[in-house]
Amino acid sequence: MADKPSVPRGTRDFSPTEMVRRNFIFDTIKSVFRKYGYQQIETPSMENLSTLMGKYGDEGDKLIFKILDSGDFVEKTNSYKKVDRGDFVEKEVLLKDLNDLYDYYLIGQHNSSAGESLYPAQISSTLNKIIDEWNSKAVKYMTALFNTKSFTSEISEKALRYDLTVPFARYVVMHQNEITFPFKRFQVQPVWRADRPQKGRYREFYQCDADVVGSDSLLNEAEFVLIYDEALSKLGLKDFTIKINNRKILSGIAEIIDKSDSIIHLTVAIDKLDKIGLDGVTKELMDRGFSEEDIEKIKPVILLEGSNEAKLESLRLALINSDTGLKGCDEIETVLNYIANCPLQTANLELDITLARGLNYYTGAIFEVKTNEVAMGSIGGGGRYDDLTGMFGMKGLTGVGISFGADRIYDVMEELKLFPAETAQSTKVLICCFDKEGEKYAFPIVQQLRSREMSAELYPAGAKIKKQLDYANGKNIPYVIIIGSEEMESGLLAIKNMLTGEQEKKSLAEIIGYLKNS
Amino acid sequence: MADKPSVPRGTRDFSPTEMVRRNFIFDTIKSVFRKYGYQQIETPSMENLSTLMGKYGDEGDKLIFKILDSGDFVEKTNSYKKVDRGDFVEKEVLLKDLNDLYDYYLIGQHNSSAGESLYPAQISSTLNKIIDEWNSKAVKYMTALFNTKSFTSEISEKALRYDLTVPFARYVVMHQNEITFPFKRFQVQPVWRADRPQKGRYREFYQCDADVVGSDSLLNEAEFVLIYDEALSKLGLKDFTIKINNRKILSGIAEIIDKSDSIIHLTVAIDKLDKIGLDGVTKELMDRGFSEEDIEKIKPVILLEGSNEAKLESLRLALINSDTGLKGCDEIETVLNYIANCPLQTANLELDITLARGLNYYTGAIFEVKTNEVAMGSIGGGGRYDDLTGMFGMKGLTGVGISFGADRIYDVMEELKLFPAETAQSTKVLICCFDKEGEKYAFPIVQQLRSREMSAELYPAGAKIKKQLDYANGKNIPYVIIIGSEEMESGLLAIKNMLTGEQEKKSLAEIIGYLKNS
Repeated sequence: MADKPSVPRGTRDFSPTEMVRRNFIFDTIKSVFRKYGYQQIETPSMENLSTLMGKYGDEGDKLIFKILDSGDFVEKTNSYKKVDRGDFVEKEVLLKDLNDLYDYYLIGQHNSSAGESLYPAQISSTLNKIIDEWNSKAVKYMTALFNTKSFTSEISEKALRYDLTVPFARYVVMHQNEITFPFKRFQVQPVWRADRPQKGRYREFYQCDADVVGSDSLLNEAEFVLIYDEALSKLGLKDFTIKINNRKILSGIAEIIDKSDSIIHLTVAIDKLDKIGLDGVTKELMDRGFSEEDIEKIKPVILLEGSNEAKLESLRLALINSDTGLKGCDEIETVLNYIANCPLQTANLELDITLARGLNYYTGAIFEVKTNEVAMGSIGGGGRYDDLTGMFGMKGLTGVGISFGADRIYDVMEELKLFPAETAQSTKVLICCFDKEGEKYAFPIVQQLRSREMSAELYPAGAKIKKQLDYANGKNIPYVIIIGSEEMESGLLAIKNMLTGEQEKKSLAEIIGYLKNS
Repeated sequence: MADKPSVPRGTRDFSPTEMVRRNFIFDTIKSVFRKYGYQQIETPSMENLSTLMGKYGDEGDKLIFKILDSGDFVEKTNSYKKVDRGDFVEKEVLLKDLNDLYDYYLIGQHNSSAGESLYPAQISSTLNKIIDEWNSKAVKYMTALFNTKSFTSEISEKALRYDLTVPFARYVVMHQNEITFPFKRFQVQPVWRADRPQKGRYREFYQCDADVVGSDSLLNEAEFVLIYDEALSKLGLKDFTIKINNRKILSGIAEIIDKSDSIIHLTVAIDKLDKIGLDGVTKELMDRGFSEEDIEKIKPVILLEGSNEAKLESLRLALINSDTGLKGCDEIETVLNYIANCPLQTANLELDITLARGLNYYTGAIFEVKTNEVAMGSIGGGGRYDDLTGMFGMKGLTGVGISFGADRIYDVMEELKLFPAETAQSTKVLICCFDKEGEKYAFPIVQQLRSREMSAELYPAGAKIKKQLDYANGKNIPYVIIIGSEEMESGLLAIKNMLTGEQEKKSLAEIIGYLKNS
């Protein structure tokens, strides 16, 4: 095939420059995870279909990439075997219709003795009837056999990881006897989703998660706030907000107006406050069957203002009759107290009771991170969940985790030009020479530079210097050493700064020192 | 589903310790690649099926993991539509058989007038005939439709990467206008093969490749020898051999006995020399139709001995009548001369004309790396190929590349206990406390340690010290700081060395210095 090659929709190649920058982001985040005692694991790209199905809702199931079984996967299916055996022939249809024909024969007998002849027409019409009936049944049967849903389970038993959370739960259950709990793990791997690709949404993308399971201490929540603050500060973000909320507060709000069963409607409406304003929220709540009285009761909560401490105070008043709600307030306060002890570098930490994300999933703290420098969705989020591993039969293991949105962070950093200059260059110095002689002279030199852990290249002899300098520019190589006959005699090499264009002659020793300090 | 969870056959989870060690291997190799001017790229895990099929031979095609199209993939297939339309009903069979029936009717007419009655039997037998014929045709038709090969192309248009070479070729062709040639790239990503899993062979494993395309200079070959030497030395291997050969020498050997067409047989036989000895090789060659005379001619080549220089000398004599063969010798000599200029750290570089691997693929240099410390297959290999990108319509781009066998290197290092002690530990120090008071006192301290880039943890209050120390041991944490009421008063903290068991009291400042230098 010599058609123009391409990559599948929603997938990407990463160029050298993109890789250096992505590594910069991932390495920064990983180093912070490690500093806080989180350990890296990796799980296979493929999981058993049964491990993934039913964990992400019906919509999610549809978006899971299934892998075809290898070998003669169709021939293995029951559907195929039934066809192969002709199981779809329904003999009783045949027999019934044979009887019809026999009747016609008897009538025929009688009629023919009366000199008439009705056979051919009726026999052929009956035959047509047989075939049509038979055929439509066969078609129904076949189409039923080859229905996607039933067929999939027959030809695919593996699928690509959809997120890092379910494989992590599977990992914890499988390895529970080797693990020291509380287990603090991080994982940075690609996941795959058969979503409709669009700007900023890909079918293959990296997730960057840290979770701790087996500890209900709110110290973990506090440390995640610190991890967000430190990692994003190290990446150069100057103004971002870590929003924190607690599921128990949301439950409390629903409780005080006896609408625990409508908590979803409630939070969905409140969540829109900054978009549609109080009137909008009020209207939506009325439509959802909340009474004016209800709304009056929760208005103070919705309109919460001031410092986190002030918000907590008003919350406590509003939730005075909900033990759950007050528990949520206590939990938030505990986290805030930890942080008060070690000020944040950059982040604003904001209690935001309109924050609901993945409500049904989270049971305690809920986190979300937004940059205030660029219009962009959340660049991180997470929360506490109970019983993550329950789906694999290991009950009552509580956990809390966060995630960094690497692709969005990349876009933010690019827009704000936050990538360090080094991330644009790879090789530090290129040695150019005019001929084989120069190459022979230069080869030990490039090795000396490398032996001092400098990234250096020697351009193979035979190319014009112009071409060699273009190569240096194309690769953003900041320094070039040019070796001609004169240099080989004097031992003084010409080193050129590709940015300023200035060129000096130095001994190799001088050059090494010069490059080390630049 | 609460069944015992598992991972698909041939895939693996990597524990924290395994990850640290794998990262140690990959980071070491990557840093060497970078030092030599190689730049990292990444390509998507999925490629279009058309990009991969036909590149690895029929066997390879079978081992490619195909991904099911999303949505109603079966309903989309022609096979399904044909069934759905009942296209498999063959009317002419029906009509022909109706005529038969009509004939029976006529005979019947005649016979019945003669007082006999043959209808039912013949009609029913004919009907059976119709149905059986019809049925067997339908079954044939259906089974043909749902034949795996044809069906696959209808329900799968994407597949998982089988190696890094074909995606690299695809990348170069797609991005040729952004790339500065010669293009030196490295790539470290998993690949997937539907192979039968066995010890040391997995269905998902990492490949670790470096290639340069767009340069025919043998400087590249020489630098790859240096890269192998430096990377494996840095990993701690003490005795390994880099074998080098050249496809042109093998062609020359075939040429001098006029057996260019039998070069495969020749090399396959020679390749077995160390296993089956000269007699074995002779016998195999005779069986393959080589004459005694042929064998006499090539014997000196097969029995090549002594230093690389000595081998080259005898080769040149033997290949005196083959320009190709002599060119191969020159190329080897050029590489050896480069290396002579910069001695290797550890590796033995050995010209081995029995080395053939992937012969049909390579056109010049051929590499293979073997450790001499452990019985183990090759831990690396590569060579020069012409026209890698030809398969995607970009002609005449020469390249040379090498690959590291990460999984085998891991096994070697484990067997030789070459992993540095640090790779066994993650967190450097754990702070233990007795109660909430202690935790409150300790939290700013753990943050101070972290602010000095030390990996430190604070065990959440509420657990017995015993449990906290078990946690430290379970995670191989070498130091533990214990904070009780006495420590909080005096400000002198008890620091315990978990390896020696010794415990001292130090101020925080002292502890920081102490940990920095240990």
